[in-house]
Amino acid sequence: MAPRYAPSLRSRLGPLLLFLQTGFILIYAFYFEIQENVVDEASFRDAYAEFQDVNVMVVLGFGFLCTFLVRHGFSSSGFNLLVAAIATQWALMLTGLESWYDRGKIPLDLRSVLVAEMCAASALISMGAVMGKANPVQLVLLALLEVSGFVLNEQLLQGLLKVRPLKGIMLLHIFGAFFGLTLTWILYRKGSERGFEKEKFDQKPGLFSMLGSVFLWMFWPTFNSVLVDDRFPGRKLGAVYSTYLALAVSAVTAASVSVLSSPRGKLNLIQMQSCILAGGVAVGVSMSAVHQPWEAMAIGFAAAVLSATGFKYLKSHMLLAFHCHDTAAILSTHGLPGLLGWFAHLILQIKDSGDPTVAIRFAVFHICTLLVTITVSLTMGTLTGFLLRLNVWRPPQNRKCFDDQAFWEEVPTGSNTPKPYRLL
Amino acid sequence: MAPRYAPSLRSRLGPLLLFLQTGFILIYAFYFEIQENVVDEASFRDAYAEFQDVNVMVVLGFGFLCTFLVRHGFSSSGFNLLVAAIATQWALMLTGLESWYDRGKIPLDLRSVLVAEMCAASALISMGAVMGKANPVQLVLLALLEVSGFVLNEQLLQGLLKVRPLKGIMLLHIFGAFFGLTLTWILYRKGSERGFEKEKFDQKPGLFSMLGSVFLWMFWPTFNSVLVDDRFPGRKLGAVYSTYLALAVSAVTAASVSVLSSPRGKLNLIQMQSCILAGGVAVGVSMSAVHQPWEAMAIGFAAAVLSATGFKYLKSHMLLAFHCHDTAAILSTHGLPGLLGWFAHLILQIKDSGDPTVAIRFAVFHICTLLVTITVSLTMGTLTGFLLRLNVWRPPQNRKCFDDQAFWEEVPTGSNTPKPYRLL
Amino acid sequence: MAPRYAPSLRSRLGPLLLFLQTGFILIYAFYFEIQENVVDEASFRDAYAEFQDVNVMVVLGFGFLCTFLVRHGFSSSGFNLLVAAIATQWALMLTGLESWYDRGKIPLDLRSVLVAEMCAASALISMGAVMGKANPVQLVLLALLEVSGFVLNEQLLQGLLKVRPLKGIMLLHIFGAFFGLTLTWILYRKGSERGFEKEKFDQKPGLFSMLGSVFLWMFWPTFNSVLVDDRFPGRKLGAVYSTYLALAVSAVTAASVSVLSSPRGKLNLIQMQSCILAGGVAVGVSMSAVHQPWEAMAIGFAAAVLSATGFKYLKSHMLLAFHCHDTAAILSTHGLPGLLGWFAHLILQIKDSGDPTVAIRFAVFHICTLLVTITVSLTMGTLTGFLLRLNVWRPPQNRKCFDDQAFWEEVPTGSNTPKPYRLL
Repeated sequence: MAPRYAPSLRSRLGPLLLFLQTGFILIYAFYFEIQENVVDEASFRDAYAEFQDVNVMVVLGFGFLCTFLVRHGFSSSGFNLLVAAIATQWALMLTGLESWYDRGKIPLDLRSVLVAEMCAASALISMGAVMGKANPVQLVLLALLEVSGFVLNEQLLQGLLKVRPLKGIMLLHIFGAFFGLTLTWILYRKGSERGFEKEKFDQKPGLFSMLGSVFLWMFWPTFNSVLVDDRFPGRKLGAVYSTYLALAVSAVTAASVSVLSSPRGKLNLIQMQSCILAGGVAVGVSMSAVHQPWEAMAIGFAAAVLSATGFKYLKSHMLLAFHCHDTAAILSTHGLPGLLGWFAHLILQIKDSGDPTVAIRFAVFHICTLLVTITVSLTMGTLTGFLLRLNVWRPPQNRKCFDDQAFWEEVPTGSNTPKPYRLL
Repeated sequence: MAPRYAPSLRSRLGPLLLFLQTGFILIYAFYFEIQENVVDEASFRDAYAEFQDVNVMVVLGFGFLCTFLVRHGFSSSGFNLLVAAIATQWALMLTGLESWYDRGKIPLDLRSVLVAEMCAASALISMGAVMGKANPVQLVLLALLEVSGFVLNEQLLQGLLKVRPLKGIMLLHIFGAFFGLTLTWILYRKGSERGFEKEKFDQKPGLFSMLGSVFLWMFWPTFNSVLVDDRFPGRKLGAVYSTYLALAVSAVTAASVSVLSSPRGKLNLIQMQSCILAGGVAVGVSMSAVHQPWEAMAIGFAAAVLSATGFKYLKSHMLLAFHCHDTAAILSTHGLPGLLGWFAHLILQIKDSGDPTVAIRFAVFHICTLLVTITVSLTMGTLTGFLLRLNVWRPPQNRKCFDDQAFWEEVPTGSNTPKPYRLL
Repeated sequence: MAPRYAPSLRSRLGPLLLFLQTGFILIYAFYFEIQENVVDEASFRDAYAEFQDVNVMVVLGFGFLCTFLVRHGFSSSGFNLLVAAIATQWALMLTGLESWYDRGKIPLDLRSVLVAEMCAASALISMGAVMGKANPVQLVLLALLEVSGFVLNEQLLQGLLKVRPLKGIMLLHIFGAFFGLTLTWILYRKGSERGFEKEKFDQKPGLFSMLGSVFLWMFWPTFNSVLVDDRFPGRKLGAVYSTYLALAVSAVTAASVSVLSSPRGKLNLIQMQSCILAGGVAVGVSMSAVHQPWEAMAIGFAAAVLSATGFKYLKSHMLLAFHCHDTAAILSTHGLPGLLGWFAHLILQIKDSGDPTVAIRFAVFHICTLLVTITVSLTMGTLTGFLLRLNVWRPPQNRKCFDDQAFWEEVPTGSNTPKPYRLL
């Protein structure tokens, strides 16, 4: 008979976190230095405001987006914070390797923390696919490996194809989605297609995930514009407008597709929450080729249609045909809109370049960028999948999946009063 | 016998949204251009930070304010996002008509998006009056007509009375409140005075509406100061202080009136949530005449007393005597404090102008501004009311009012796993 | 037999708030003036953005942090707003006394409001200790006395020991914690050790307190950096990095200690919510001596270990051994990390000063700072405790503690429709 309780993580999670954290502190002690030579107060405030916005998206937005699972709210938001904190520290080290090699020290400034948080975001996207089926030990390992893969991919793109850093980072949606899908495919549990006992949705947590979704929606213009070169504020502004318009169009289109695809003409909240963000994802990937408001709006429209249709039909198909259980539908939230954005970028760039030779050269280069990204993503996803499948990490049993009780102490009535003395 | 289900919106909402959105994209393709010639990075960040704040108020603040209805949280927050996205796009077109007439193109910059969002806010205020009794098709039509009316009113005020744009926009509280009240009076449903079956409040969603309310409270200083002329930062600062002090006083006064007007000396959460904002509304309308901290505080005090008393006694009176069912009490939240602000502006301006001729001239001008606004508001509200009363929009039956189930797919256990295969 | 209902506050809270608020307005009318001579738009926006962040922390962060009590969410968030609004107005007056003495007028600028809000925060910390056991009348009195004590302490530190204002304000965690503990010790209710009937926790409000906690976590870098001298943006940046790193380390460490100290290897949400903030508290106190990333990280690590251990073992010990019932565990959230930060400051400063004479002089000065703060805090806490113990404030009975029903109107079904007419 299966054990009644989920396996204890005491001997796994505690030491792992302690080891990682003390290790990080030691590495930071020897190789990091604070970069204090900022030019002026104004530029500090600007950078800080952008950093805050991205911070809100990563910690609050992603954290509350997955709280639609009725018995999994603590895990969704708590593990998100934990993984974000570890992945950002880890990404700061990896992205600083070059400086370390050149100068022996890694400078710490707001921009590097910001880039590190965006690398961490790729791990949070992948987490969406295995959410509820993996324990925090597995999630921490996932984050470490995924961030490594993502930084490696960026280095490859910059080294081999001279892709600009901004463009490389914006592929995080595609990278994260394919990584997560490979992972959940390898970690497939028999019986998933019948649904997990505790995989439930409810009205009330629905508003919490609405909150996460709305915070992502509101701050997405910052996410896309933050790494655009500061020397051309016009471009930054363009990224803000494009993202805002695409998001507005996505919200309207998502509602429309949702009501049209429902036999009884009703809206689906979780579908809407994923799909109102599709425009932001697609414009993020295609941004540098978008110059007109209508282009951004058309991309937002197409992304929302694709994303909402994918959510409705593709998710169950993926599960049944490919044994790929995608909890938070990251394929339709990040994968498809990301690919669409990539494709829109290609089309717009070809349209804008008068010369066919330039167009073909760009197309080859653009296709290679995607191929490299997907290859690295699938490879790292496979490796991570096989690592996480080991029983040594003590994954929860099927019937403990999607259950906060597996990881969080039950808080009984008046639990903060000392139990043993209550009968005195 | 009445049908068991709410009428399906599949053939109404889907095509309407698709038509509007594709139409908007086409219009934007031909007539809009991105304005990229920003002066410097700092001014971009300033404008963007203000835009973000207003965005948070419109999407999150207004969206979560009405979630106190226990079975209506998804609709309150979801429809708010939908309507805000459409109304902003529509307002961008209407406010750009003049540029289009002059130059054939409408420039898109952060300020125009911001003004458009504030116009959209007037529609969100009116929505509060019919919330729970109208379907999303009706809400979208409401938003289109209300924004048109509001922009028309602004043009009239600027054309006829040379009212400055800022002052015109700040009348949005008065415009929205009277528009919404007329609308809900025309859409009166027999039996409202006995209360709707599903019009329930509950403790837990109460905290969500507290969240919306608190976000409005925190960001209201931005809302009032954002359109104050940038060339005089002192004035902007004055608007921030005045609003903050008025809001602080409102919070204390609202609690005081709430406990004094309750026979058993208890506070009422929904009353407090509406009335802590009264000071912000009143100072917004009277801002340009407020020069001393105590003036703002006194306005905040009077507004909170008026608003809290109105909430307690006027709401049921309006329903019984005038057949006007005002779901979110917009009369006492926006209408009365707005009128008070208008009156305070009059008094302060007369006090400050030494010359009686100037004072009388100002008074006439100020009264005309209010009369024009109320006339346009009532007229457009009546027109919209008669349009929305048509059965072709398929409004929900009385017993489906205030019920998320009428518009949102029920999400049963494990609903994202494919139903037909579960028995395999 | 005990009365069935909690005592009515109608004759206490209403008049008290009205009296305070009208008194404040009169004082502001005579002695305050708006300071409008700001240098430029950019500096206004910078100050305003910081003010907004602190506002979000005070109103939203502290307000929602204590909503983990299942039946006390309205009181936690509502009373927090009420107390913050009063305490800020009161602190503005007290911190302006010097200007009033010199010039007869108190200037009102964003920085003074910001400092006032931080003084108010010290009262919100103390409130955490008596939350659920005190009525709003008592909380308002607590806030007035605590803010007075805190401003007095700052004056003493500046006058006697020439402590810089920033350093004085950052002691708010220590001041607030000791004030609150003394208070709850004096207000001890017999039977507390058996737990209160309504002192319950629940899963769903848990996410609201997660929200408050996460907002504090995200905006804490602003809280610590906001008062650092603007003329050295590098230092401000340093405060931001240090706080961010300490918070990230705290989050990881808190999870680790939580899982290690649980017999079944599970995490405790409320413990995590308190302890992820420990790093921010400790770095806030020690900030001016932290120059390396690893120092901040090590402080964050130690603070989280101390805070999590304190939460687990000290809270019940305090209750049983010292009759000190600390609802929100402010000793381990603010007190211990604050003391640790103080100690880290001492060590770092001694390490950095080559000269032993300088080191000893600093140590004496630093120890005196702490002694003065704790003395003032304990004295004011004792005074406040004896004042609040009077029955004239009508504290709730034991069985009405931790119960929203004692202070908030029950909102029955359709309560906003007029009751007396419902049978017509």
